[in-house]
Amino acid sequence: MASNTGLALFTDLYQLTMAQAYFQHGMFAPATFSFFVRKFPPDRAYFVAAGLEDVLHFLEEIRFTKADIDYLHSTAMFSDNFLEYLKGLRFAGDVWAVPEGKLFFCDEPVIEVTAPIIEAQIVETFVVNQTNFQSLIATKASRTVFAARGKRVVDFSLRRTHGIDAGMKVARASFIGGFEATSNVLAGQQYGIPVVGTMAHSFVIAFEREIDAFRAFADSFPDNTVLLVDTYDTLEGARKAAVVALELEARGKRARGVRLDSGDISYLSREVRRILDEARLSHVRIVASGGLDEHEVARLLENGAPVDSFGVGTKMGVSADAPWLDCAYKLVKYKGRPVLKLSTGKATLPDEKQVFRYRDEAGLLHHDVIGLRHETPPDGAPAEHLLSQVMRGGRRLGASPTLKEAQERFIQEFARLPAGCKVLQDPRHYPVELSPGLTALRDRIQQEVVEEEIGKA
Amino acid sequence: MASNTGLALFTDLYQLTMAQAYFQHGMFAPATFSFFVRKFPPDRAYFVAAGLEDVLHFLEEIRFTKADIDYLHSTAMFSDNFLEYLKGLRFAGDVWAVPEGKLFFCDEPVIEVTAPIIEAQIVETFVVNQTNFQSLIATKASRTVFAARGKRVVDFSLRRTHGIDAGMKVARASFIGGFEATSNVLAGQQYGIPVVGTMAHSFVIAFEREIDAFRAFADSFPDNTVLLVDTYDTLEGARKAAVVALELEARGKRARGVRLDSGDISYLSREVRRILDEARLSHVRIVASGGLDEHEVARLLENGAPVDSFGVGTKMGVSADAPWLDCAYKLVKYKGRPVLKLSTGKATLPDEKQVFRYRDEAGLLHHDVIGLRHETPPDGAPAEHLLSQVMRGGRRLGASPTLKEAQERFIQEFARLPAGCKVLQDPRHYPVELSPGLTALRDRIQQEVVEEEIGKA
Repeated sequence: MASNTGLALFTDLYQLTMAQAYFQHGMFAPATFSFFVRKFPPDRAYFVAAGLEDVLHFLEEIRFTKADIDYLHSTAMFSDNFLEYLKGLRFAGDVWAVPEGKLFFCDEPVIEVTAPIIEAQIVETFVVNQTNFQSLIATKASRTVFAARGKRVVDFSLRRTHGIDAGMKVARASFIGGFEATSNVLAGQQYGIPVVGTMAHSFVIAFEREIDAFRAFADSFPDNTVLLVDTYDTLEGARKAAVVALELEARGKRARGVRLDSGDISYLSREVRRILDEARLSHVRIVASGGLDEHEVARLLENGAPVDSFGVGTKMGVSADAPWLDCAYKLVKYKGRPVLKLSTGKATLPDEKQVFRYRDEAGLLHHDVIGLRHETPPDGAPAEHLLSQVMRGGRRLGASPTLKEAQERFIQEFARLPAGCKVLQDPRHYPVELSPGLTALRDRIQQEVVEEEIGKA
Repeated sequence: MASNTGLALFTDLYQLTMAQAYFQHGMFAPATFSFFVRKFPPDRAYFVAAGLEDVLHFLEEIRFTKADIDYLHSTAMFSDNFLEYLKGLRFAGDVWAVPEGKLFFCDEPVIEVTAPIIEAQIVETFVVNQTNFQSLIATKASRTVFAARGKRVVDFSLRRTHGIDAGMKVARASFIGGFEATSNVLAGQQYGIPVVGTMAHSFVIAFEREIDAFRAFADSFPDNTVLLVDTYDTLEGARKAAVVALELEARGKRARGVRLDSGDISYLSREVRRILDEARLSHVRIVASGGLDEHEVARLLENGAPVDSFGVGTKMGVSADAPWLDCAYKLVKYKGRPVLKLSTGKATLPDEKQVFRYRDEAGLLHHDVIGLRHETPPDGAPAEHLLSQVMRGGRRLGASPTLKEAQERFIQEFARLPAGCKVLQDPRHYPVELSPGLTALRDRIQQEVVEEEIGKA
């Protein structure tokens, strides 16, 4: 576990070799890098921005410790004067970004970092790592929230997330994407996310009889009793849960729910609802979990399954159908010169940019225009400017928004996204155009690069 | 980032609610939990064990800090005397485990934890989180190594792993699974894994001309020059790289390689090889990267692409085709009583277990038998006992093996796995049987549970 070290070395080696070459060639001019996503994964037509808070925190904190420098020295790849320079390195750049919780689309800049090229280059790995992952998960989570049609959805993914940080960031990003709570206690402590959970199968089988386990739990948590009923047989389990719920009633308490974690949830939830209702326990809610994702949640609700709350785990926490984004952090300007690359399938847009977002008369999102940062929005109509400056000279501008604020921003924005862009399969693509200024600049630089590097076509 | 806190709260809330109920009902007897995988993901027929070192380290270190206790108190779910108990909690249990780097198969116990039930329960989340993820990645990495037929394979995944810990553990687990190096500098420092990397596209476009970038890099790293040639046009880039490599020769140095990161690698690598060979640069190697996985590596080599080394990133680092394992950590014994659950599709095997591994005359792995821990291997023939005790009373038995030792264990074991189990698609399943003792015990307990909980069928 890397818990007691700094994160300056959390970078790809090539960031440091490039940095040394920049250093040795006196290249300290400002560079702007732009983070964006190239392509939608299958069945996606929007992304939810997340990860910026961790990026800004990292940029404020980055420094190379003595142990870091000693390690780099031991590789025999770096010169003493470069390592001396690294010792004093701080991030003193500017950052423009899309706020967490906002929607964004392919090719749109989400974070733009401007700093002396070494600083802007070295931080790439962390910026991409956090923004890619948290946006991926916030997006996946939002799909489940959409599928759940207002029913409660909570994060149960911690055991199968990709390591410790992933467990924390899934709780964080899924909350931004509309989840209501998490099972992750550390995320409750660190982020203030409500925590939920009651019992696992091991609790039931640690007792000689299932009903003994239910009674013991109700005794310990009379105000928070959710009984897991599928350890042996779901319907028998539900009948025993009803017995224990009625015993609680006799003590003036109310059981909160039962949880189904396996089998045909659609059928079982109906039967369990009937068992509970016949025992006059209609206030006892049904929680479903076990291998759920947005498609299964949608299917259950389309079938009328009387599920009140969904515990969604692994498939959300690893974004199982699309576990990565085709994203990039690319140099777009160096020393005042807008630049781009032409690599097959990976060409980039030059210069510092802004995204102009237009709505229709009803307030729904209508289309976006990617333009140059200081360009006047092309259509004349009022447009929202999606990126704002959040860091200047290495210092944050303004206080961090709370996680709840990011969630609310998502909820408001998502409500204005056309329904066709949200559907779980084959969604409609949202219109994103390039501004006249950006188009002209790109065409001119492409032409120059082709002439310079490849020869006249 | 959760870097300065302990990890005791890195757990699902239900672990703590169950713990309080155990506490309040005087349940402190020893429990054994078993970690295993239920099902193979598509195209998998073996797993590579990884994650144990982190599990043991966690078990040695776990304790609830004052801040942890204060947070739990703030939830109003826990009693003062339970929280007082948690303050003093240490893990004082026993652990049996399959060593890192060994192969294992479905249903086989990989880690078995025996401790007072509260201790064994609370650690579940961490045990599953790390063992699931690291085994998943070691397995995925081993497939790429198999596909590469002895060519060098290195980890380039850091920017798109699921967060910080994932970046570290992918470097670690892929090294166990046979990778030779990583781009992750922090993993180099923390784990002693060789680090690799030279330049990105941004380096090329920061210069006015591509060849200026190549010259600057060769000047800074005359002994470690690998030039990325696809920024504008791969073949033009290769010609410029050849010019710079010849300039290096004139200075008595040798360029190490060129890297192709986009386009039709099969075609381009041949053309680039020809350009280099015609310039008498046959020692300059070709590195391929960009969206590679085991299938693409296999395809390139089948096509005879003259690639010398593969940088494998995202798809390995997130195990893109199978980003999670259907694994579980289940109670198998409590208070001397073997137990199981019957949940649909998730039934478990009772009691503490051992895996007996048999080889054929040629030394190849022949079949495994899952038996009871103290059962005599059933066939009389000599069998390897796969699990050994690695912790007693909360203290490790013996020193940690090095990561290199785990990798060597993998390489040796993998060489003995029948080839049919390794193929990338539709592999043959390796035979795993249950011992007579385990079969009889399971049948008896299932019968008892059915009679007790469901009524005679």
